[in-house]
Amino acid sequence: MRLPEDVILKEVGPRDGLQNEKVFISTEDKVEWINQLSESGLSYIEVSSFVHPKWIPALSDADEVFSKITRQPGVTYSALVPNAKGTERALKANVDEFAVFMSASDTHNRKNINKSIEETFPVLEEVADEGRKAGKKVRGYVSTVFGCPYDGKVAVSEVKKVCDRLFSMGVYEISLGDTIGIANPKQVDEVLRELVNDFDADRFALHFHDTRGLALANTLAGLNAGITTFDGSTGGLGGCPYAKGASGNAASEDLIFMFEEMGINTGIDFNKFLKAASFIEKALGKPLPGRQLKLLEGRT
Amino acid sequence: MRLPEDVILKEVGPRDGLQNEKVFISTEDKVEWINQLSESGLSYIEVSSFVHPKWIPALSDADEVFSKITRQPGVTYSALVPNAKGTERALKANVDEFAVFMSASDTHNRKNINKSIEETFPVLEEVADEGRKAGKKVRGYVSTVFGCPYDGKVAVSEVKKVCDRLFSMGVYEISLGDTIGIANPKQVDEVLRELVNDFDADRFALHFHDTRGLALANTLAGLNAGITTFDGSTGGLGGCPYAKGASGNAASEDLIFMFEEMGINTGIDFNKFLKAASFIEKALGKPLPGRQLKLLEGRT
Repeated sequence: MRLPEDVILKEVGPRDGLQNEKVFISTEDKVEWINQLSESGLSYIEVSSFVHPKWIPALSDADEVFSKITRQPGVTYSALVPNAKGTERALKANVDEFAVFMSASDTHNRKNINKSIEETFPVLEEVADEGRKAGKKVRGYVSTVFGCPYDGKVAVSEVKKVCDRLFSMGVYEISLGDTIGIANPKQVDEVLRELVNDFDADRFALHFHDTRGLALANTLAGLNAGITTFDGSTGGLGGCPYAKGASGNAASEDLIFMFEEMGINTGIDFNKFLKAASFIEKALGKPLPGRQLKLLEGRT
Repeated sequence: MRLPEDVILKEVGPRDGLQNEKVFISTEDKVEWINQLSESGLSYIEVSSFVHPKWIPALSDADEVFSKITRQPGVTYSALVPNAKGTERALKANVDEFAVFMSASDTHNRKNINKSIEETFPVLEEVADEGRKAGKKVRGYVSTVFGCPYDGKVAVSEVKKVCDRLFSMGVYEISLGDTIGIANPKQVDEVLRELVNDFDADRFALHFHDTRGLALANTLAGLNAGITTFDGSTGGLGGCPYAKGASGNAASEDLIFMFEEMGINTGIDFNKFLKAASFIEKALGKPLPGRQLKLLEGRT
């Protein structure tokens, strides 16, 4: 088994976790949570999204959150930026890094952002250009890499095409998303081995969902294939609208626990992270699916 | 990643899953559950335990369960046999296979069976001898292989000693137990690579607990190290007395799902298995932790 010495965990809970929540978490609680996360040793936090508030009311306070958080040195505070209007707001909020997103499957892309894949590229290109002109790094998300709720399996050739276009826009890293939590470790191994034939492994991150309990096994397959950056969401926060009762994102603290137990350094203080997880769980007023939280609280 | 074409899943729920339950499942329900499991394509079911009913009241009806189940051709119906008295009952019940058990850590062995490791060998030897004389295969369980709640880490040299003694008694296979669910994939890889230096990989099975959500990742590490037999418990049934709120055994249907998704044949009909899981969950009257059951029921 091939394992790295260090990994980077990128915390996406404040954006990807909250965006599907019906409850509006107060700006004050968001800020407190992000500040606690900042103090845990994380190096990257995706703070919010500059999509139109009509689409994601849960994150309508993105500008205010950015203005109120305490930024720690060494921590990158990023945001999702979907279009020109979002770019304007993101620059005004002085985000550290832009994230752009699209799907590897055309149907999912249309359902999600109302455009074909081809129509999406110029929009993201403009965001990426403006971001880079302002000195921001740009990260890309590609969703449905391992399966689409509409189109089923997604050919690696399609994933490659999308990656190629995103990299050519100056995106420095692509987070490969298992949006509906359908990936299995063998598939992760196979897809990554094909991708790293064409691109460097360190230009990819993995973004798993734990819908079928496979997030940690898939992460192990990713590590073994040479990937060292992983997205996680506090407590496993983040629903999936396509699967009833499905768990959401891989829980960051479950990832941290596995990495550290394997002697892979994350730079994160597990107990401080768990405290931040308990905080947001309480603010949400519902139990989160992350295993470490369950264990802490004595839930099954 | 090295993956086999086929694996054997050994279902231990009716014994290992039920033994910690406070609720007494009626003999009728046990028999119905085991009959449903038998029809799912499983090749191995650990039906019950012939320990003294005083110690495990939940399994006090072992004799009756064996007499009432419908045995399918090609399915091995085994039982745990702790001592001479248990041997007598197991032979009378005409079990197909004996299972003997002990710990790799002396303190856990003393707490669990009130004997030192050295004192345990002759007892198991007698069981194994009597079983083999009656034409029964004998399987061994070694618990706390990856960590002990009292002694912490367990040296692989200690595990090897216990395995060596068990194999020399004629035990054909040893199930290596992560009794408190503390193993991590790197450790699984390392321990197995040391063990298969001394013994054939096909003489080992892996028995994981999902306490920290690592059962599937550990299973993947086990597959990659050449192991092809895994224990599972329906629905993840089976508590751990040492961890508050801990999940129990690896859920058989979660293992089956992962194997089959990876193209590894189990010979088990997933939907029939899930039906049997729903049956025992209903009989127990409480939600079980297995992920596939949660997904089916829309629980988080």
